[in-house]
Amino acid sequence: MSRTVKLAVIPGDGIGPEVVSEAVKVLEAVTAGTDVSFERTTFSLGAQRYLETGDVLTEEDLEAIASHDAILLGAVGGAPGDPRLAGANIERGLLLKLRFSLDHYVNLRPTRIYPGVPSPLADAGDVDFVVVREGTEGPYVGNGGSIRTGTPHEVANEVSVNTAYGVERVVRYAFAAARSRHGRLTLVHKTNVLTFAGSLWKRIVDEVAIEFPDVTVDYLHVDAATIFFVTNPGRFDVLVTDNLFGDILTDLAGAISGGIGLAASGNINPDGTSPSMFEPVHGSAPDIAGTQKADPTAAILSVALLLDHLGLADAAASVTRAVTEDIATRTGTPRRTAEIGDAIVAALSL
Amino acid sequence: MSRTVKLAVIPGDGIGPEVVSEAVKVLEAVTAGTDVSFERTTFSLGAQRYLETGDVLTEEDLEAIASHDAILLGAVGGAPGDPRLAGANIERGLLLKLRFSLDHYVNLRPTRIYPGVPSPLADAGDVDFVVVREGTEGPYVGNGGSIRTGTPHEVANEVSVNTAYGVERVVRYAFAAARSRHGRLTLVHKTNVLTFAGSLWKRIVDEVAIEFPDVTVDYLHVDAATIFFVTNPGRFDVLVTDNLFGDILTDLAGAISGGIGLAASGNINPDGTSPSMFEPVHGSAPDIAGTQKADPTAAILSVALLLDHLGLADAAASVTRAVTEDIATRTGTPRRTAEIGDAIVAALSL
Ligand SMILES: CC(C)[C@H](C(=O)O)[C@@H](O)C(=O)O
Ligand SMILES: CC(C)[C@H](C(=O)O)[C@@H](O)C(=O)O
Repeated sequence: MSRTVKLAVIPGDGIGPEVVSEAVKVLEAVTAGTDVSFERTTFSLGAQRYLETGDVLTEEDLEAIASHDAILLGAVGGAPGDPRLAGANIERGLLLKLRFSLDHYVNLRPTRIYPGVPSPLADAGDVDFVVVREGTEGPYVGNGGSIRTGTPHEVANEVSVNTAYGVERVVRYAFAAARSRHGRLTLVHKTNVLTFAGSLWKRIVDEVAIEFPDVTVDYLHVDAATIFFVTNPGRFDVLVTDNLFGDILTDLAGAISGGIGLAASGNINPDGTSPSMFEPVHGSAPDIAGTQKADPTAAILSVALLLDHLGLADAAASVTRAVTEDIATRTGTPRRTAEIGDAIVAALSL
Repeated sequence: MSRTVKLAVIPGDGIGPEVVSEAVKVLEAVTAGTDVSFERTTFSLGAQRYLETGDVLTEEDLEAIASHDAILLGAVGGAPGDPRLAGANIERGLLLKLRFSLDHYVNLRPTRIYPGVPSPLADAGDVDFVVVREGTEGPYVGNGGSIRTGTPHEVANEVSVNTAYGVERVVRYAFAAARSRHGRLTLVHKTNVLTFAGSLWKRIVDEVAIEFPDVTVDYLHVDAATIFFVTNPGRFDVLVTDNLFGDILTDLAGAISGGIGLAASGNINPDGTSPSMFEPVHGSAPDIAGTQKADPTAAILSVALLLDHLGLADAAASVTRAVTEDIATRTGTPRRTAEIGDAIVAALSL
């Protein structure tokens, strides 16, 4: 019985198209000869499209994307300080718009130190954890405003919105993830200062914990969590946290594990009511765009997350194995983006 | 002409009293025989006092403290999970109440890697920067609330409040600090997501920059800033950021520079309309309270910041020199809290 997966591909800006090419190459290679095939539609979205048409993401774009089974995204965002982009916020208008519209309430960001990868930490130890970042609430809701804007009397507010509904579903996902891993869950928040949001997160975690007696629960303030990220990252298994704390912690996680060039992520709607989206954590790096200098590994590892999400666990494991293999043999001699992709494809059949 | 400084001392909980004893010892030693003397009043505040009286900080406490010239604080907070403290929030009710009531709009947190101190970073390089954290606005204002609390329909909000008035004064302080150091200022925010607060911060920095043509200005998103903290912390001179981002970044800064046991801070009211408050960044560590295991160095370095604030630059420099001296000769053999204080006092006269 063959299966066709409709995949929306958003290469985006800067190095996005280059790394996505390699990711697609690996996706095709790992599923070649299996009963799964991908029907790809490419969407030209991002800074470039905005400059050409004035549109960031139209309702039609959104509808078309939503009709797919999954999304693979490279990176979006033009050159920082480009005056032609001053009026647009590609991040909010495209990336966050997709996450919110498609109800990607789980932002899944695994961190591993792969054998052979140098960490900036002197003694990182064995690092293998997953951050489950909430994706549709918190300070990301866009619920802010300002008065007397541009004057010496300006007041600018940002509202972090947190609901029991929204917190519970992501907390539940995190508990299940912990159960399937090493049974340890760390809630990260700032309950001593953000007392209302903090109490809600704490209460929900306490409540859901009752259903997961096999999972050990731990709590850290976000400031203290950053300390453990550099002094003892091996202590973590699964972390669950809000949208903003998760954003900060996962960049730090990328850094300690040998660079954001290896960090993959999934924006997941676990209910399957809309397509989930997989993307490297890194940005569009316009300064090296088109030079074949970008490392496509994070995009390729995002393909592994995509395959896992589609229930293709074997194919996902093959990709991770090939990447691990390739990383272990890296010599430090720079390779072109496509060479890395080719090497990983070659490693698939080892 | 002799000068008497009225100093309010808040030893607090846990290891607070122990580290404050040593800090006072150093303060007395470095000013002995000079024309400056300290008239100290000790305030018993913190979890212990709350358990005894039910009060966290009364109006009378606040008035009495405010009538001093400066404040030295150890650490506050009881044992985590102590059920008798469940109803109190010592952090909000005492520490933040002091910062807000006394208008400590500059939270000054210097980071240095002292010679001889091992960093968790393999190659930290030369680290010497200052975080100027806003202290009276942002998500710390306590402007949150919840509805349907405790039910599956709860909504909990937290409002980050940012004013041109509040941002400008701290930004101005940061520019002046950069001018007196290496002339480099980095604004850290999350302008692409928190667009209202972010625009305000960006605008004010751009405006004040015109008055400081000798200061180079740089911008980083908070997530990217954490990456540089572990990959290239030597690039920073002065950072200016909001209350919450500053909280997170300074714990990380403490960690990369060899531990929160060395991190000092000043909660400063640069206008002098109320006493500034100096405290180690670390907490009360109730687990080791009373065992003489705490390192008083951060409290002692807070005394250096206090002396600097009082215009006693020479005494401040002596304390920093003595601490640097002591740190350089540390062997790894644990010393008692009082031994470290004594050693630093001895190093004062080297
Ligand atoms: C680009 C930006 C809006 C985004 C975020 O803050 O979520 C990015 O930093 C990320 O982590 O995916
Ligand atoms: C104890 C807590 C309220 C405080 C803060 O968040 O400011 C602490 O973490 C600090 O950095 O001084």
